Amino acid sequence: MEITSMNGGDNQYSYVKYSLLQRIGVDSSKVMIEEAIADKLDIQDLKNSFETFRIADFGCSVGPDTFIAVHNIIQALDLKYNSRYHQTAGGLVSSDNTTTPEYHVSFSDNTFNDFNTLFASLPERKYLVSGVPGSFYNRLFPRDSLHFVHTSFALHFLSGVPKEVVDINSPAWNKGRIHYTNAPNEVVAAYTAQHAVDMKAFLCARAQEIVCGGLMVMLIPAIPDGTSPSLSHPGILSDLLGSCLMDMAKMGLVDEDKVDLFNLPVYSTSPKEVKDAVENNGCFSIERMETTLVPPSVMDIGASNIAEIYNDHVRAVGEGIIKEYFGNDITEKLFELYPKKLADSLSILASGKSSLLFVLLKRTKLPLQNE
Amino acid sequence: MEITSMNGGDNQYSYVKYSLLQRIGVDSSKVMIEEAIADKLDIQDLKNSFETFRIADFGCSVGPDTFIAVHNIIQALDLKYNSRYHQTAGGLVSSDNTTTPEYHVSFSDNTFNDFNTLFASLPERKYLVSGVPGSFYNRLFPRDSLHFVHTSFALHFLSGVPKEVVDINSPAWNKGRIHYTNAPNEVVAAYTAQHAVDMKAFLCARAQEIVCGGLMVMLIPAIPDGTSPSLSHPGILSDLLGSCLMDMAKMGLVDEDKVDLFNLPVYSTSPKEVKDAVENNGCFSIERMETTLVPPSVMDIGASNIAEIYNDHVRAVGEGIIKEYFGNDITEKLFELYPKKLADSLSILASGKSSLLFVLLKRTKLPLQNE
Repeated sequence: MEITSMNGGDNQYSYVKYSLLQRIGVDSSKVMIEEAIADKLDIQDLKNSFETFRIADFGCSVGPDTFIAVHNIIQALDLKYNSRYHQTAGGLVSSDNTTTPEYHVSFSDNTFNDFNTLFASLPERKYLVSGVPGSFYNRLFPRDSLHFVHTSFALHFLSGVPKEVVDINSPAWNKGRIHYTNAPNEVVAAYTAQHAVDMKAFLCARAQEIVCGGLMVMLIPAIPDGTSPSLSHPGILSDLLGSCLMDMAKMGLVDEDKVDLFNLPVYSTSPKEVKDAVENNGCFSIERMETTLVPPSVMDIGASNIAEIYNDHVRAVGEGIIKEYFGNDITEKLFELYPKKLADSLSILASGKSSLLFVLLKRTKLPLQNE
Repeated sequence: MEITSMNGGDNQYSYVKYSLLQRIGVDSSKVMIEEAIADKLDIQDLKNSFETFRIADFGCSVGPDTFIAVHNIIQALDLKYNSRYHQTAGGLVSSDNTTTPEYHVSFSDNTFNDFNTLFASLPERKYLVSGVPGSFYNRLFPRDSLHFVHTSFALHFLSGVPKEVVDINSPAWNKGRIHYTNAPNEVVAAYTAQHAVDMKAFLCARAQEIVCGGLMVMLIPAIPDGTSPSLSHPGILSDLLGSCLMDMAKMGLVDEDKVDLFNLPVYSTSPKEVKDAVENNGCFSIERMETTLVPPSVMDIGASNIAEIYNDHVRAVGEGIIKEYFGNDITEKLFELYPKKLADSLSILASGKSSLLFVLLKRTKLPLQNE
């Protein structure tokens, strides 16, 4: 089931306008992408296998972040191809565009992503384009067809809510909450297991799609190893949203049973979990893995706006899921209560741990185990 | 400029519901597509160059015709691959799915096509999917990347209205009409020249995209060689629509100057023009070219409904263009007048000439002249 689409179009709370945190992530990874392409991409090795250099962004949403990321990637590739010919051709091969391959970029997201908005806002470009609808937990591209994969602020979305947490007869039934923050161990375990299954599926699909020697950059909202959900920044944000819904249930504005059965299909992974998943998959080498902290940069914007910024962020990302489940009527009230709750919790939010995990993988030449 | 998008969504006059003529075309070409793949596709020859068999439909609109065409193509390919292994493997290679390649299908149409509707209605399938936005008069796919191309009811749309016909100072200024039916020779010549330029661009782009040995099926609404526009079926339909607009101008419902500057970017080609364009391009051999007559089949549906059917057809195809130019206000009245005008002209319509041109091209191994 594909349930996670960002708000489309360009209305007030659209993802286009409120992807501030994502933008910071894309900007902060620019240098790391440049270094990845400069240092880790062996174009000599790839050369025989293509005339077209194929790039894919998984979880592209509607732009413009995806266009910025693609621009950064292609700029780094141009530099690589041109400098290579400068260095090796001894004046015989010029460094003009004829030395760079033709670029093909695929923008991929769930089937119900607003591809119309994405296509209508495509920038002037020197690459060919396609849109690829479908869940990235499945195969979406032909075998051995991608040379560079990018995915940013997307892998924290699970393929769906773990079944156990909406099963009244399960010890993992998540009554009175919409996430695993401050929940019984069984709930946390169900989310953790779902994430492990999903990461396995994601890596298995990409291992088939990416050519040997191809690179994959993953930018994942995460938490430091060993952080309790209740002390994590995304955990606190989810918990406060859940408590607003429970407040609304007490006010009679929404059915409490319905809130009990609603859960966010989102999980904050950790460096160790990602490392384990990659090692278990066995088709990729970890070329670089590091964390950058996001909240301080956001804090720099000014504390007075912070509740509003988080509200807009959560609304842009979560409103679609909430509307789909609860209908259209509750979101105005919900996102009237939420910023107040956020404003009352600024000190907790400020101390909440969170990080942005940058991972660079290279498709190795090892045979696939489960192909 | 991309100005030709079908009505999207699934409202009353959407393309989905009123593409009856197109459906007849797709159905009537089923057997010819099967024969093309059975007799003209040399999979032994293609085999070395791919593990993925890449199909593209240009001018896909929002479905379901494109899904039916793709289904027909893949069914014929499956048959080809399986029977080949039956015949040659002597029992050593089974004819199960492992003998067929992985299929990848690209649905392509103008940037403002409703891809959201297309993606949401994708059928259960055994092929990978992408959507490719952009005018097919430009390059849209990587070099040597397509094995089978299909385009149906799309090539009669020009890349735009010829400049001269909206230039008041040109002898080709098309005052009082919206098309070249019953127009001065200069107007007809401007449309004819635009079509020649567009066909050249289309074939040049596809020649680069299609692998040597790859096939292209084109299903084009056309008229027999030497038919005067005023005796052609699409010419009569356009002329009657134009006369409705002029009637509305006389009633003061629309500005006459505005009608003078409005022209349909549509052209009815002929077998000879297509043959000339292919020969001038020089990269394709014509493997099959034949015409089938559409109007009689439609007439079979029942004369009493025919005005309505044509009205719905023209509305589904043309309403988007008309709204874009005239605004939303005039279409209700226009498509109230049009069926009456059609009903008054049934005998002219019945005698109007028109055909559906089926063309099968094969990408030859000749070097590209203008690459």
